[in-house]
Amino acid sequence: MSDLPKSVYLNEEGPREGFQIEAETIPTARKIELIDRLAQTGLRHIQVASFVNPRAVPGMADADMVVKGFRHVPGVEFTALWLNQKGFQRALGHSGRLAINGSLNLYASDAFLMRNQNRIPAQQRAAQHELIAMYQAAGVRVKRGFISAAFGCNFEGDIAPAHVVRLVGELLHIAAEHGETIDHIGLGDTMAWATPRSIKRVVGAVREAYPDQHLLLHLHDTRGMGIANAFAGLEMGVRMFDSAVAGLGGCPFAGHQGAAGNVCTEDLVFMSEEMGIATGVDLDALIDCARLAEDIVGHPLPGAVMRGGGLKKYRTALSASRSS
Amino acid sequence: MSDLPKSVYLNEEGPREGFQIEAETIPTARKIELIDRLAQTGLRHIQVASFVNPRAVPGMADADMVVKGFRHVPGVEFTALWLNQKGFQRALGHSGRLAINGSLNLYASDAFLMRNQNRIPAQQRAAQHELIAMYQAAGVRVKRGFISAAFGCNFEGDIAPAHVVRLVGELLHIAAEHGETIDHIGLGDTMAWATPRSIKRVVGAVREAYPDQHLLLHLHDTRGMGIANAFAGLEMGVRMFDSAVAGLGGCPFAGHQGAAGNVCTEDLVFMSEEMGIATGVDLDALIDCARLAEDIVGHPLPGAVMRGGGLKKYRTALSASRSS
Repeated sequence: MSDLPKSVYLNEEGPREGFQIEAETIPTARKIELIDRLAQTGLRHIQVASFVNPRAVPGMADADMVVKGFRHVPGVEFTALWLNQKGFQRALGHSGRLAINGSLNLYASDAFLMRNQNRIPAQQRAAQHELIAMYQAAGVRVKRGFISAAFGCNFEGDIAPAHVVRLVGELLHIAAEHGETIDHIGLGDTMAWATPRSIKRVVGAVREAYPDQHLLLHLHDTRGMGIANAFAGLEMGVRMFDSAVAGLGGCPFAGHQGAAGNVCTEDLVFMSEEMGIATGVDLDALIDCARLAEDIVGHPLPGAVMRGGGLKKYRTALSASRSS
Repeated sequence: MSDLPKSVYLNEEGPREGFQIEAETIPTARKIELIDRLAQTGLRHIQVASFVNPRAVPGMADADMVVKGFRHVPGVEFTALWLNQKGFQRALGHSGRLAINGSLNLYASDAFLMRNQNRIPAQQRAAQHELIAMYQAAGVRVKRGFISAAFGCNFEGDIAPAHVVRLVGELLHIAAEHGETIDHIGLGDTMAWATPRSIKRVVGAVREAYPDQHLLLHLHDTRGMGIANAFAGLEMGVRMFDSAVAGLGGCPFAGHQGAAGNVCTEDLVFMSEEMGIATGVDLDALIDCARLAEDIVGHPLPGAVMRGGGLKKYRTALSASRSS
């Protein structure tokens, strides 16, 4: 248990992950309402929108309006996602309101890379060099390196930990060639193949090879392993997680089968704080945000603590009765 | 990781835990349908009903009919729950169809014991001696000892691991005084206070004191910790779990707030099998049962793998394409 970190850093991705998959269009004002509320919980990082083709992702057609609309809070980093140069240029147009950080991405599954990007690994590596050039031309530093499908792939099966270690090395090398220092490497359980055991194996292998490298886990809860996988990551000393309030992006309805979001932020906050790991987040305020998220999407979301409640009320009542 | 067991034994409690909380009466034939299907999955233990006062629990008024109705399957242990002598006598009436095992129960929280049983600890201990006398008069062995609220309590807060260890000792001592040998000690997270860390602490303390004693975990998923807590238990070498198909007993609807069932059987089977721990259960057959359970109760249930699906279909397709 000695490896449990003292604190964790959470990248809240709910507003971006969650709203883009909804069948109904969410009014821009309600997206902004959730972002503004999230920014008051103690979260230090909120991903607010994707700058993607509105024909491909109609739910993100209002990304510019969302970014213009939220209330800026000092100490909170607001970010956006983009998938190509055009999206990056749109994000740059908001550089006063958004933190613009470069990101590199390799795939642990060649088969998935081909399906998703129509590229072979050499092409993907070349594309990372071009990305850095684009970032550097805009004066943007590369902050994150990311390995997709690091724990398994529908089209390639299990992934060898040693392969992930190699890819981490490649990412660090590509960045170094351009004088960039990656802040953290994200390992993505893109298709929800991970179990706590594979988390420990892969993270353990990467940590052994690169003991000083900060790691992040991007976990999906499609098969109910999200919180258990996060715990396994915490036990391996991982201190950064992507997560989504209320488990946005997922849904317990049969009609949304297979759509399961990131690990749920407030469930992760509950577990962390109860285990003595500081998150900086006010759980009750975050639970209110989770309920707001359900109200906005108009159907149940997968989070558990927003229904079960935290334990603070019991502890407060107990300490009041003991001191009286 | 060396302590992960090679196999686990699951006590399926869905038919008993799940149906008694439903607002609508579930037809007896449909309860039997689920039990019969569960008995074909490889599960070795299914708790089918509670012999409780039908005025207190109307959903269990048909317990005798359910027990008479299911199809007996060799190798599967069918059990029932009772809370007093009257219930025990009803269960005994089905001793040809049910495995009748005695169970003892102490409470880690005095405050909860008073609220739940209106007893102080000395009275609860005395009641266990009377229970054994009742079992022995009927020729029934004591199989399980159980500690309620072993990880925390709404009315008493956190529970010291050393206190749980003392109670385990008391249970073993009470049984031994009557010549009984307890098969396994269950630790109940009755009010869903546990985190993986407290699971490790309490189980660790008990194992240190009683290294040869088989332990079982009874986990609730009220705050989303069920699977993570099960993983922590597995890492501590726990090989027996109570669980409920589809997470029966819980519900993601706001109208069922706070009603969260046992940890979900098929999610636990998925995690175990993926980590190389044998369950003896056919995951796909169990997923079919989980969907049947949703159909029977008429609303979504919390299980995740029944929506996300297992990984076998991908592995099968991959091995077919590789061998062709």
